Amino acid sequence: MDTKELFQNEISRRRLLINAGAAAVGAAGFWALTSSKLGLVNTAEAKEGPTEKWPWPYVKLDPDKTAEIAYNEWYRVFCGAAVINAVFSQLREKVGEPYKSFPVDAFVFLEGGMAGWGTVCGSNAGANIVSNVIIGPRIAGPDCEHGHTVGSDMMDWYANTALPTYQPKEPKQKTAIIQTTSNSPLCHISVGKWMQKSGFSLGSAERKDRCARVAASVTHKLVLDLNDWKDGKFKPKSTWKPGGTVGITGQQNCTECHGDKVPTPPMAKK
Amino acid sequence: MDTKELFQNEISRRRLLINAGAAAVGAAGFWALTSSKLGLVNTAEAKEGPTEKWPWPYVKLDPDKTAEIAYNEWYRVFCGAAVINAVFSQLREKVGEPYKSFPVDAFVFLEGGMAGWGTVCGSNAGANIVSNVIIGPRIAGPDCEHGHTVGSDMMDWYANTALPTYQPKEPKQKTAIIQTTSNSPLCHISVGKWMQKSGFSLGSAERKDRCARVAASVTHKLVLDLNDWKDGKFKPKSTWKPGGTVGITGQQNCTECHGDKVPTPPMAKK
Repeated sequence: MDTKELFQNEISRRRLLINAGAAAVGAAGFWALTSSKLGLVNTAEAKEGPTEKWPWPYVKLDPDKTAEIAYNEWYRVFCGAAVINAVFSQLREKVGEPYKSFPVDAFVFLEGGMAGWGTVCGSNAGANIVSNVIIGPRIAGPDCEHGHTVGSDMMDWYANTALPTYQPKEPKQKTAIIQTTSNSPLCHISVGKWMQKSGFSLGSAERKDRCARVAASVTHKLVLDLNDWKDGKFKPKSTWKPGGTVGITGQQNCTECHGDKVPTPPMAKK
Repeated sequence: MDTKELFQNEISRRRLLINAGAAAVGAAGFWALTSSKLGLVNTAEAKEGPTEKWPWPYVKLDPDKTAEIAYNEWYRVFCGAAVINAVFSQLREKVGEPYKSFPVDAFVFLEGGMAGWGTVCGSNAGANIVSNVIIGPRIAGPDCEHGHTVGSDMMDWYANTALPTYQPKEPKQKTAIIQTTSNSPLCHISVGKWMQKSGFSLGSAERKDRCARVAASVTHKLVLDLNDWKDGKFKPKSTWKPGGTVGITGQQNCTECHGDKVPTPPMAKK
């Protein structure tokens, strides 16, 4: 993003000061924050919460098992929350906090491209939430940059892959689910192209199972990337940086909406 | 969403069973969950986290003050996290947990329509996160339905309002910031129309201040709606339910991308 260079230095400096302060509070501060839940202590000294230290503890997960959880969770909480809970439900058991305090089910609203509006596919949004909550936001310093890049890579992969890639072990729909490539991270375009090619309606059991499998496919790749990051070997594949290259935030499919009249955005003066 | 009717009953039933179990655990369970942070107790009985009980405690906030916080926070964490933190930073002080444990800064990635991809405007995403985290997801029962509707209403208002509406008390840019109506909840379209009309580039100080003011505008409306909800008088204004009416998730501006060739999606057989 264009804002990155301008604010990175100042933010990093401020963050260092904040983290130094937080570290000085240490175990006593942590206890005070925990105890404040019980009304024993009234604490207001910490501007940032106790979970805003990155990375969160992560143990490598099994991609197939996690994808299968996502597939089944789709039928409970839909795409976005399914991706998040497939990862976090296991980390709640294996790690505990801070995963236990993350309100996964609140993210049901990511369904249908955010409350049905067809914007970003909830599976992409869920994957970005997971990577940024675990690894951290890019403003938190260079150790956290892959929160951003794992998420951005996911949207690139999602847009350029024939989905769904994941075949559930116990599919709820036995009929074949065809694959389509969206060339977009948006729900409306991803679902629309699949509906157009398959002939199935939004309300069909086949469309639902397709989306459950897409959530599982995204989760499978997410775990592969998180495991690579944990091993220190994650390398972003996506080179898509539209702010710097085309002068506006955007997807890769300009002509699909604009036709051959792709507008030229006003560019910064040199 | 089309899935709502089909799964609502089963989900409500399951939720009731889960909540009944959680209530039975009571204070002792809460203590065990809290203590597990300190490694004193190993608890694995609760599938859902302690924060997945809705609504979260909410005290009414001042819309102007909260919008001003969002405006300034934009320059630290950009649109999505600015909206979230404008609300949650105050509730951390006034209420404490569970707000303290929510990792707001992880949501920096909402910038630029999610990592720069121009999908949903981060201010819309942030508002949806706030409303659904506080009020709860629609699957949690009728008391939580307005988590979903406050968020969906925001996208409708955002798409159909000349933005920004909020004038900061101490603007970082003294020059006039023009208003544009996006007819879309997407970053690319919202920012693009503003850039086209204003002539300012993505990297300009004016564009940044415009987006900071949009975050503040969204936050102002969000607090008005949350306060109404707290008083039991929030009524959704949006009637946009694309899954049921047009047969696909989507926005309200079909012809803007499709021209006069708006496809007819396959519809469910009667």
